[in-house]
Amino acid sequence: MTMTDGPSHTALSTLGEFGLIERIASRVQLHHKASVKGIGDDAAVIDPQGMHQVVTTDMLLEGVHFDLGYVPLKHLGYKAVVVNLSDVYAMNAEPRQITVSLALSNRFPVEAVDELYEGILLACRNYGVDLVGGDTCSSTSGLVISVTAIGAARKEDIVYRGGAKDNELLVVSGDLGGAYMGLQILEREKAVFKETGAQPDLAGHDYILERQLKPEARRDIIELLKKLGVKPTSMIDISDGLASEAIHIARRSGLGVRIYDEKIPIDPATHQTARDFHLDPTTCALNGGEDYELLFTIAQSDFDRIKGNPDLTVIGHMTDVNSGCVLIDKHGGQHALRAQGWDAFLAPTS
Amino acid sequence: MTMTDGPSHTALSTLGEFGLIERIASRVQLHHKASVKGIGDDAAVIDPQGMHQVVTTDMLLEGVHFDLGYVPLKHLGYKAVVVNLSDVYAMNAEPRQITVSLALSNRFPVEAVDELYEGILLACRNYGVDLVGGDTCSSTSGLVISVTAIGAARKEDIVYRGGAKDNELLVVSGDLGGAYMGLQILEREKAVFKETGAQPDLAGHDYILERQLKPEARRDIIELLKKLGVKPTSMIDISDGLASEAIHIARRSGLGVRIYDEKIPIDPATHQTARDFHLDPTTCALNGGEDYELLFTIAQSDFDRIKGNPDLTVIGHMTDVNSGCVLIDKHGGQHALRAQGWDAFLAPTS
Repeated sequence: MTMTDGPSHTALSTLGEFGLIERIASRVQLHHKASVKGIGDDAAVIDPQGMHQVVTTDMLLEGVHFDLGYVPLKHLGYKAVVVNLSDVYAMNAEPRQITVSLALSNRFPVEAVDELYEGILLACRNYGVDLVGGDTCSSTSGLVISVTAIGAARKEDIVYRGGAKDNELLVVSGDLGGAYMGLQILEREKAVFKETGAQPDLAGHDYILERQLKPEARRDIIELLKKLGVKPTSMIDISDGLASEAIHIARRSGLGVRIYDEKIPIDPATHQTARDFHLDPTTCALNGGEDYELLFTIAQSDFDRIKGNPDLTVIGHMTDVNSGCVLIDKHGGQHALRAQGWDAFLAPTS
Repeated sequence: MTMTDGPSHTALSTLGEFGLIERIASRVQLHHKASVKGIGDDAAVIDPQGMHQVVTTDMLLEGVHFDLGYVPLKHLGYKAVVVNLSDVYAMNAEPRQITVSLALSNRFPVEAVDELYEGILLACRNYGVDLVGGDTCSSTSGLVISVTAIGAARKEDIVYRGGAKDNELLVVSGDLGGAYMGLQILEREKAVFKETGAQPDLAGHDYILERQLKPEARRDIIELLKKLGVKPTSMIDISDGLASEAIHIARRSGLGVRIYDEKIPIDPATHQTARDFHLDPTTCALNGGEDYELLFTIAQSDFDRIKGNPDLTVIGHMTDVNSGCVLIDKHGGQHALRAQGWDAFLAPTS
């Protein structure tokens, strides 16, 4: 684990809270003209430049959302930012600023905090986002990271969950279930290590491990859709699993939804690993979550514009509300889609 | 403690995460036209209406920032909001929206969460702020609350920490040290209860207990200054203690600061309690923190406009940077002001 390896160990208390804030601030540069004032005052100041603002926030807790036994701090910092940016893109907006609040216990040396911020700032660079503020405090137990992301969009460009119409196509970007299978690999190797002390065997699982440890937000899809001249009628990002998100779109739009099992895009690596774990790949894709792909609806008339794009898959369509939210299997059988609830991530019902 | 008293106990798991979010959303009404979309999408949407936006965030952890042994959940919810609004006012901005992220363990029944939100929504009503989003997740141990507040101000009205000029007057609102003394009372009674089982004796300490448990943000001062036609040249809210905040203003403004011991406003109840605890009242006011008063500088020429106002006290003035940050005692002796650092709240050096 990063916190105990490595040659240098500087106690956080030697820096103090102000010293830590200055250390972070010294590494941050503001790029957006919209970021008028960053770290160092009671609040950050943003010039909306005539745009609407979108605001989203996500909190990650050690022991619930991540296990520092196998998640490198740099990846954790990166992911904590990306999951929020994903929400901004899901509004069809451009993320511009983030704030990061951290609670740290004394077991984290300064070097560990540096590593965490390396990931946070890498995500900022990759997505063109400014770190403009936050809070640092001590924790009596685990690490807590709370990120708020702020984005900008023209009012008329914003896409809500509730805008889908009957008969519109349901489209998903990328492929699903990979992040969940990556987690299964990590959990298995952790259990093996605990029992036998054997070093983790992660070979051959690069793709699904990256899906779990270093997910990306689909900025490229938002840009692609703009280029194609397609404005989704509704959109959501897939953090809790396809089933749950499809139900959100349906409910908010006052509709039903129909997803075709065979259409759900699943990477061969995900498929194989699911089989190795005696899991149904479709169930992993439906309920696994954390894929951070975009799920959206488009008018039938827009189909020709997205057709054939390897990054976009039509997996179903919207129906009237009385038809419910259903999965159609390859034999034409109907199954009710079920949303995952509390602690979905820890205890999937699948 | 609220979590175990009372007749009704509904496990959070019976609601599920979605149920909990719907329960919260059903109690929330949006009042600002600027709040275009609240809870229920990937992000909230705000119409800045031509204003600049300010953003601030604070995280509170059980066992670090609060002790549920003596902090009622309703008060905790109220305070978690107020400390953020205080930061918005300190920018001379008007708070308009908040997001609230909560991490909860299973020991909290639904009724406890309701009580927490009662306090959160009371603060929203009292300050005219909309709850527009957040995150709820499970915690393996304590309660974590992370609030982000968003405010609006005309660009030319925003007040930073770094705008003070040499010779300007340093002014503080209200009185200081009360919140810290309230905490001492609560800690003492908790220790007595642990040792002897005696019920807490809080009689006669209403003022300082309220300062600790249910602080208010000084919206009235911001409105008063506008009415008086006084725009502070720099401003900060007092969360970490007068000394620390005065040093922030001085450093950011490239100046020194001189505070006169005798001028620091201390309520008689605070004074008496400090004496009872064998503490120096001035030290409590300088380093106690959590008073959420406003500390600001004004031009000498504005003195006549604030003079005689019982809510505003001139406690010193800015100096050139070489004069440093000093406290002048009643005998004219100079003492270096010292900022509190990491864990200031838990282990005050005073």
